[in-house]
Amino acid sequence: MWPLNNLPVKALKDRYGFVPTAQWAEHVQKSAVRFQTGGSGSIVSPDGLVMTNHHVGSDMLLKLSTTGHDLLKEGFWADDRSKELACPDLELNVLWEIQDVTPRVNASVKEGVAAAEAGKARRETIATIEKESKDKTGMKAQVVTLYGGSKYHLYLYKAFTDIRLVFAPEEAIAFFGGDTDNFEFPRFDLDCCFFRIYENGKPFKAEHYLKWSSGGAAENELTFVVGHPGRTERLNTYDHLKVSRDVELPRRLGEMWRTEIKAQTFAGRSAENARIVRDDLFGVANGRKAITGQLEGLQDPALMAGKKAAEDALRAAVNADPAMKAKWGTAWDDVAAAKKIDIATSERRALLGRATGGSILMGKASTIVRLVAELPKPSSERLREFGDAQLDSLYLNLYSAEPIYDSLEIYGLSQALARAAERLGADDPAVVTLLAGKSPAARAAELVKAGTLRDPAARKALVAGGAKAVAESKDPMVRLAIALDPESRELRKKFEDAVESPLREAYSKIGAAKFAIQGDSVYPDATFTLRLSFGPIKGFVDAGEKVPAFTTFAGLYERGAQRKGQEGFEIPQKWLDAKGKLDLKTPFNFVCTADIIGGNSGSPIVNARGEVVGLVFDGNIHSLVGNYVYNQESGRAVGVDSRGLIEAIRTVYGADALVRELTGK
Amino acid sequence: MWPLNNLPVKALKDRYGFVPTAQWAEHVQKSAVRFQTGGSGSIVSPDGLVMTNHHVGSDMLLKLSTTGHDLLKEGFWADDRSKELACPDLELNVLWEIQDVTPRVNASVKEGVAAAEAGKARRETIATIEKESKDKTGMKAQVVTLYGGSKYHLYLYKAFTDIRLVFAPEEAIAFFGGDTDNFEFPRFDLDCCFFRIYENGKPFKAEHYLKWSSGGAAENELTFVVGHPGRTERLNTYDHLKVSRDVELPRRLGEMWRTEIKAQTFAGRSAENARIVRDDLFGVANGRKAITGQLEGLQDPALMAGKKAAEDALRAAVNADPAMKAKWGTAWDDVAAAKKIDIATSERRALLGRATGGSILMGKASTIVRLVAELPKPSSERLREFGDAQLDSLYLNLYSAEPIYDSLEIYGLSQALARAAERLGADDPAVVTLLAGKSPAARAAELVKAGTLRDPAARKALVAGGAKAVAESKDPMVRLAIALDPESRELRKKFEDAVESPLREAYSKIGAAKFAIQGDSVYPDATFTLRLSFGPIKGFVDAGEKVPAFTTFAGLYERGAQRKGQEGFEIPQKWLDAKGKLDLKTPFNFVCTADIIGGNSGSPIVNARGEVVGLVFDGNIHSLVGNYVYNQESGRAVGVDSRGLIEAIRTVYGADALVRELTGK
Repeated sequence: MWPLNNLPVKALKDRYGFVPTAQWAEHVQKSAVRFQTGGSGSIVSPDGLVMTNHHVGSDMLLKLSTTGHDLLKEGFWADDRSKELACPDLELNVLWEIQDVTPRVNASVKEGVAAAEAGKARRETIATIEKESKDKTGMKAQVVTLYGGSKYHLYLYKAFTDIRLVFAPEEAIAFFGGDTDNFEFPRFDLDCCFFRIYENGKPFKAEHYLKWSSGGAAENELTFVVGHPGRTERLNTYDHLKVSRDVELPRRLGEMWRTEIKAQTFAGRSAENARIVRDDLFGVANGRKAITGQLEGLQDPALMAGKKAAEDALRAAVNADPAMKAKWGTAWDDVAAAKKIDIATSERRALLGRATGGSILMGKASTIVRLVAELPKPSSERLREFGDAQLDSLYLNLYSAEPIYDSLEIYGLSQALARAAERLGADDPAVVTLLAGKSPAARAAELVKAGTLRDPAARKALVAGGAKAVAESKDPMVRLAIALDPESRELRKKFEDAVESPLREAYSKIGAAKFAIQGDSVYPDATFTLRLSFGPIKGFVDAGEKVPAFTTFAGLYERGAQRKGQEGFEIPQKWLDAKGKLDLKTPFNFVCTADIIGGNSGSPIVNARGEVVGLVFDGNIHSLVGNYVYNQESGRAVGVDSRGLIEAIRTVYGADALVRELTGK
Repeated sequence: MWPLNNLPVKALKDRYGFVPTAQWAEHVQKSAVRFQTGGSGSIVSPDGLVMTNHHVGSDMLLKLSTTGHDLLKEGFWADDRSKELACPDLELNVLWEIQDVTPRVNASVKEGVAAAEAGKARRETIATIEKESKDKTGMKAQVVTLYGGSKYHLYLYKAFTDIRLVFAPEEAIAFFGGDTDNFEFPRFDLDCCFFRIYENGKPFKAEHYLKWSSGGAAENELTFVVGHPGRTERLNTYDHLKVSRDVELPRRLGEMWRTEIKAQTFAGRSAENARIVRDDLFGVANGRKAITGQLEGLQDPALMAGKKAAEDALRAAVNADPAMKAKWGTAWDDVAAAKKIDIATSERRALLGRATGGSILMGKASTIVRLVAELPKPSSERLREFGDAQLDSLYLNLYSAEPIYDSLEIYGLSQALARAAERLGADDPAVVTLLAGKSPAARAAELVKAGTLRDPAARKALVAGGAKAVAESKDPMVRLAIALDPESRELRKKFEDAVESPLREAYSKIGAAKFAIQGDSVYPDATFTLRLSFGPIKGFVDAGEKVPAFTTFAGLYERGAQRKGQEGFEIPQKWLDAKGKLDLKTPFNFVCTADIIGGNSGSPIVNARGEVVGLVFDGNIHSLVGNYVYNQESGRAVGVDSRGLIEAIRTVYGADALVRELTGK
């Protein structure tokens, strides 16, 4: 997972005889797209057509659906550009430039100050850099912390907010196999979705876009994945991993099991409930399976032993050199100490955060309460997400005209309230404030019914009225957000000072030790920024059985027949009708060894010429441990084959214009 | 929920003009059946025919199924007695006699001894009473602790173990509406199952059995439920309830959400997995919904305020009288202190217990390890479940020839191991012992594959070999059970001495205070012993809408059409075929105000003449708070109507012989 400004040129040349030129790197970089909602994509036509996964676009498909017209279920195809549907609040980013600002960030920290103070100085400098860069370039500016704090790079993005839906298949084929086959292979999924970027009301004329490969890729061919892996923890210390294994992941899973059952129950009550909660339900089930894989990785003593051995060797090398020992020797213990504070305070912080963001309306009320308090401050002194450089994205979400369903609002908020009561106890002062003497369900219903922020204009008016208007607001959600804000801010400050900043300091030392002893041949952990990974198309061995690299359309129909009647395995009618016309030998899905993780969904898979040969949509179960260690042996990225994409879009959906745009023919 | 030896005669007479005679009470008592697997039933023919719910019989339906022959799914009907299927390990109990042994139990406790010692003395006396009674009468003897320790009653049961399956409908109609409609009303479920008691190889000639009512019951008619409510906590103190609300129920739900998701995942992997885990999945989903209702009750400040006011009044009355204050004044604080110890230790105890019972084989290994250690001791000094009076039931389970599926064994055990690692941390000494340096999944697979106790004969041989054979056993499950036994026993002893005994002492004081101040007009909390409850058939109001008391077959077809395609709402083919022949106006399900709770499933609903008018299979959502307080206003027992039962068995299933046996015609 290499940053685009630090590609492993030598390794690529030595191992695969491939040399990525600067032009090649720039081309794939500027063709790659980041979905702010979480996910990757790529520009695949000169008219700004963007390819991603169905499950990356699904939140927009939900927002563009109505009671009578379910785009998730039915799919969508705009056979004319005038029919492309404008998304209410989707922001796409294209990475334009990277600058190393490490010296400037570090220069702002006075020698010998405590971690909390150092952290504050760095946050302020980062906010200043971001604001200056945005003012100067007009681009979206983000300083990215790499190697846990050893490097700070400024990423400048072109940000697009007029995004329209072009094509989506039915969810049943995009996610064929459901939760059962998720993170598995063989797979038979058309997990794709196409949007188009508009600029000034017209399709964006893209200078850089990925061309379609004419023949796809073959087994053992080298492929590249260009995308935005969200988060890995491969550089975490052994003690840090133990905390993840024994506290953090079990807690997260506990939350996910709860949410998944609650969402299933909500969905069961009516067809409309099922429709509006389906995307959330997919998200939590997907996350639950991913975290389960991560926890199983950490619960494997072999993995932990490997981590310990590597760390012991590094620490021994540091301790053997008095200068290094003096500079870096305590860093590992500092991490352990900070994590101890973290787990003692993080659950309360998370629960209150979830309660104030428990529904769309409650989240917007909470954002407004903070926004009017932060805006009068200088940008560098604000909470980070309210810095000038972040405001465009914040307003896009805050003023979104997305649909708001009262039933889903009440459900979400009552779950967040009940969760706080379950974990903190009903007599906890914050819970007493949250519930105001009512049961979670009654309180949620009361708040939602009296909520006044359904209309984006009402939100704009409240923000325009500033602190005074907010202080006088009678909206019960605003009142609740105001009541909770002091403790939430206190918890946030405690986290920043006693956890985040010490971890940064400690990891920057560990990073420095690594560079000093092992050289800089190490890529940083994933940070939801653009990375290149690579590897050949290759099957794997699972429980002693060889799993081939490719599947075909024929396999789809076979699996559908095998699992007839099981949820998630129903082949859509269009596909049943098209069976006779499809070339059943067409490659449908395939696996390659490229190193990916959540956030990479929607990444293009390209060949050495930079042409699209596939579309990442999943990793296999063996890749999930990739959060902690890259498993080249059996971990695989799973993609839709470019040939399968074209054959399906043409033959099943008859979307010939889309095929012409993709193939340039 | 009145014990059969203390019926509220005056209240029944005053309110309903009904006087239950001693003969009436004896007749319904001796017609009632307790399922040792959890649930109620009744004898409904002179030939020992037993009626219960499908979901009470479902574990036997699973045990009697095979890969090709799924009785849960397909249903079952033995049109000839020779075709009735013998259950591998089902024990049914009929309550024959109740004796008050409170004086003898209390006499064994020396004045002024500590709670732990008092508890030990009581346990030994109880075991002695049970053994003596069993030796004397040949009946199953259990001393039941009532009012949390104020009363001890000896219950003598006729125990039957040759039980055969007679009739079961398809699960799809027994549980129509699935998790969505569970604990709801209106309902349309044929949740019934019929077994037959055999004695000496022949159908049991029942002296007492319930006759079928010729015309069913009408709205507002008084009905009686005779069954075995499992557990209520209506007499718990306010502090105790707060612990349930803030710690115990959230923990239990956390466990249930986890188990439900894991079971869903296991089921998704293959049709065979789905078949063998379906009954567990139903059980956990059902329990999860019940506990959710309980927690929602406790999270309602109005309920808690009512509990507090009642307790404050009682405590004020006690404190106003110096003699009472001296005897009972500290009891409420003693409960709170014992519960504090309880929640600090109970999770570890539960996790180790679950690990040693994580699969059928592991559970049997653990039982054998304890059994050979306990058997040489005098009966009264053994752990309670190994007392002489309990051994028949224990052996029935230990030597059962129930099917054992390796996939389910590995799944269950790996879940129990992973759960312990999640909650206690992978470095906890007990977890290290459990995992032996492997991941939970790998360790579970290793244990199950090497397990030697699949054959009941192997278990019998190991028990026959006694402590020496067990100490020398190479079965890895036996080894693991031996390794865990010391800590498990220590945790058990700590629970008995520091939690159970002090709670008994404290609650016996609170009970005494209640009797002294309020008289003995209070029934004890449910203890999975026979109780009579009563109330008229009556609709209720739900969210402002009137819900009628009865549903009909016509409603079933309507609801099936409304929810077409949703899991749980598929009407079986036999019912679709029979639609034209059925009298669609036949009452199918109904509700009455009788006070029930989990364990009452399968209870007969009888009229004032003691004739069957229905079959309890559920409570509505408003009845779930019944764990803490009886909700007469909107809480309802849900039953299958006796007329619907007959019409369905005759017209849908053509089981005329069963109809003749039930109706006596």
